[in-house]
Amino acid sequence: MFESAEIGHQIGKKEYKQREPVLREELLRVQYELLAQAKFPVLILVNGVDGAGKGETVNLFNQWMDPRHIRTEAFSAFADEEHGLPEMWRFWQALPAKGHIGILFGSWYSAPIVARAMGHEKSARFAQRLERIRQFERMLVAEGTLLIKFWFHLSKAAARQRFKVLEADPKNAWRVTPQDWERFKHYDGFIKVTEQALRKTSTGEAPWLVIEGSDPAYRSLTAGQYLLDALTQRLAGQEPSVAAPAPVPPPALDQRSLLSAFDYDRALTLKAYQRRLEALQSRLNGLMRSPDMRQRSLVLVFEGMDAAGKGSTIRRVTQALDARQYHVVPVAAPTEEERAQPYLWRFWRHLPRHGHAALFDRSWYGRVLVERVEGFCAESDWMRAFDEINAFEEQLAEAGAVVVKFWLAITPDEQLRRFNERKATPYKNFKITDDDWRNREKWPQYQRAIGDMIDRTSTDLAPWHVVASNDKLFARIEVLSTLCQRLEQAFAASSLKKKR
Amino acid sequence: MFESAEIGHQIGKKEYKQREPVLREELLRVQYELLAQAKFPVLILVNGVDGAGKGETVNLFNQWMDPRHIRTEAFSAFADEEHGLPEMWRFWQALPAKGHIGILFGSWYSAPIVARAMGHEKSARFAQRLERIRQFERMLVAEGTLLIKFWFHLSKAAARQRFKVLEADPKNAWRVTPQDWERFKHYDGFIKVTEQALRKTSTGEAPWLVIEGSDPAYRSLTAGQYLLDALTQRLAGQEPSVAAPAPVPPPALDQRSLLSAFDYDRALTLKAYQRRLEALQSRLNGLMRSPDMRQRSLVLVFEGMDAAGKGSTIRRVTQALDARQYHVVPVAAPTEEERAQPYLWRFWRHLPRHGHAALFDRSWYGRVLVERVEGFCAESDWMRAFDEINAFEEQLAEAGAVVVKFWLAITPDEQLRRFNERKATPYKNFKITDDDWRNREKWPQYQRAIGDMIDRTSTDLAPWHVVASNDKLFARIEVLSTLCQRLEQAFAASSLKKKR
Repeated sequence: MFESAEIGHQIGKKEYKQREPVLREELLRVQYELLAQAKFPVLILVNGVDGAGKGETVNLFNQWMDPRHIRTEAFSAFADEEHGLPEMWRFWQALPAKGHIGILFGSWYSAPIVARAMGHEKSARFAQRLERIRQFERMLVAEGTLLIKFWFHLSKAAARQRFKVLEADPKNAWRVTPQDWERFKHYDGFIKVTEQALRKTSTGEAPWLVIEGSDPAYRSLTAGQYLLDALTQRLAGQEPSVAAPAPVPPPALDQRSLLSAFDYDRALTLKAYQRRLEALQSRLNGLMRSPDMRQRSLVLVFEGMDAAGKGSTIRRVTQALDARQYHVVPVAAPTEEERAQPYLWRFWRHLPRHGHAALFDRSWYGRVLVERVEGFCAESDWMRAFDEINAFEEQLAEAGAVVVKFWLAITPDEQLRRFNERKATPYKNFKITDDDWRNREKWPQYQRAIGDMIDRTSTDLAPWHVVASNDKLFARIEVLSTLCQRLEQAFAASSLKKKR
Repeated sequence: MFESAEIGHQIGKKEYKQREPVLREELLRVQYELLAQAKFPVLILVNGVDGAGKGETVNLFNQWMDPRHIRTEAFSAFADEEHGLPEMWRFWQALPAKGHIGILFGSWYSAPIVARAMGHEKSARFAQRLERIRQFERMLVAEGTLLIKFWFHLSKAAARQRFKVLEADPKNAWRVTPQDWERFKHYDGFIKVTEQALRKTSTGEAPWLVIEGSDPAYRSLTAGQYLLDALTQRLAGQEPSVAAPAPVPPPALDQRSLLSAFDYDRALTLKAYQRRLEALQSRLNGLMRSPDMRQRSLVLVFEGMDAAGKGSTIRRVTQALDARQYHVVPVAAPTEEERAQPYLWRFWRHLPRHGHAALFDRSWYGRVLVERVEGFCAESDWMRAFDEINAFEEQLAEAGAVVVKFWLAITPDEQLRRFNERKATPYKNFKITDDDWRNREKWPQYQRAIGDMIDRTSTDLAPWHVVASNDKLFARIEVLSTLCQRLEQAFAASSLKKKR
């Protein structure tokens, strides 16, 4: 992988002086074109060997182009606690909006490479983290991001030489720290691990460019020209090719589906409801106050057809909680800032910290429900969403979140009854719109989408709970009791882990 | 202040049962009306004596209304480090958007009251903090926020009694901690300080409502009814009356102004420029890398008429910095999320942490420049902006920011020359729009606005630097050298402080 980046590439001063101003002017021109189109973001990852010119190149990019539309963020290999949010959270916060350039200095590659090179993680775990990265990058590219990955390389001899030259110069000696020399001792192991990482993640949609870093002129022109070419191609309309996701299987031949075979009509008497409601709310309250919650967060998803009772069920849950401990996220049309980002971005914004709960009233499943059925996104977008959502929820679970997803299932007849009831109640009137009647006509398409959604995203870590909701009382009790069980299971599992 | 909240207010069970459902339904109705209008945010502050029912009331509000559109945030009296951001930063992050309700549990009152009651701060400092709060709340109200401030009170005897009752009940004993009893010892001092705070901050636009907290029925109905009335009045169009700010004085009779008396034509030779540029950039680079920067941040403001050279000057500054250490904030039209918040909100989002710099290409001064001249905001809005901006910058400076503001001053002739030049240069063409020509016609109005701005916002902590910019080379050198001087002064001042 690094062979051709150890051959002493160089560019003469004269050539550099000729080419640099041309490159610079062109880069600035395409940057403004990018900004004017505002159709896609550019994300540049800068990784590499210490001393190979990463910082210098990033500064040069900021000098060549207009720094007002570039955002550079530096990340250490060791994430801060981030209050129990998933590891990728900090990178999601740094994603550039459409039309802008983001430079990540030390990206999602640093932590896995360092952990593996230092021997803190086994090779199976390393392979898993790389696979996640592939998946994440595939998503970014499919969402339109122009992703550019630079690896700045130095041979071992060149790295040693570089440190010595810097140390000998009083003006630059501060750049070399004892930690640098300490890290240098691990050069060989680090390169071996890096090589694996780069091989596994140099994909068609997001290849690595390895650049020899010893000659500043060569390194700068190579990186700059690559950026210019990639931007120019993309601005000319050349889309990246992302492998199409596997198609969703057709409906079963006998037309029976999960939801058509479901018993919607389980019910409770008011008396039984009241008795159980109080007991369950008190149990939930106790669970949320338990010390076990300090290392856990709770992510609740409520989905269902219009008038399925999401709002009133959510209120039965929040009644049991302290207002300081939860927030409800009503999901409607995305804002302008959210539309300039990858689809899942707006949900990452609302993730709860440890000890807290977020209740999503509709959620990221909009992609495979309303957006699929209404054609708000391309088929390939909702098809890849299944995997992306599973990866997202897996990250939540790994960071300690208990992910509980409810589908509140009602029949078309019950929906009609509730619509009419709402129409007749003055203060509920506003809740019923023309859209609701239109959505109702697409019931069969929704049923198919829901079936696929449950088949493809009901995982061990984050299973779907389909709740019979024709009777609201039954549904509320079912939701509360499922929620308590899931929390209890999660707490039991972690105390088991601790005991081992 | 608390006299009438120690008389044992009570409401009977029967009356509560009658009134609660009515109040509840009305609250829900006005909440949806608020959401539908989306014209103003509601901010509810919940403070008071421990055990007076703050938490219970907040939970009740969340039960009575739709929790999906309420955001409750709890704040401790002790801010985390927040990376060197001003104390108020965390509250700005929690402000509700138009149409929404925010509940702050433990607000900006907690820290000053606790610090004073514990004797950690002198009374002069306390008075200053209260004055800041008045100013902040005046701004919120003027920006349209419906601000409701609840103080839940208990007499000393009632507070003691309440703890004892809770402790005696096994289900509730956990609610009383040793810290609660510890704090109870300071009851008298705490009440004395609180009384001062409430008196000084119970203003016409944002009065306190003190509620006796011993009877849950009385407390809940009183708070709920007050909220309902305030919301109903406001939704019916009754605007709060904020005292009009002092008018801006008329222009001087002789028509001479700061800018008309200014020497715009100071210039530098290219040779002198190049020599000084390199020296200053290196000096700035050293300053930004100095250990003194670890407790400092840098906030740079660049303002000037169109084509004054803001962009190119900013680039001469960023060239001297490491890309990991700064970000440039180009200020254009606010986004949808920003428009739903008070004016300064969108600048608070971009404040730098300690060790970092933010360069604002146009800034919060837009309010008293373009918004004033173009009539984008009401006269009372830009008139109050002077004080609000001074208060904002004072907070920045107190949190360790060095605030450096540049007005790049050019003459109308020079602007015309640059416009024509831009028109003639293909890749600069896009930089010149019809708006630019229109703004040019309003030169005299802008001159007046700029004069007022500099008169009213050039403070000791954050003075304006008016830079002769007809010669771009001179302007860049002037900016860089001013910047270096300001940093050096700031570092010298803090090391002086340390030595004392």
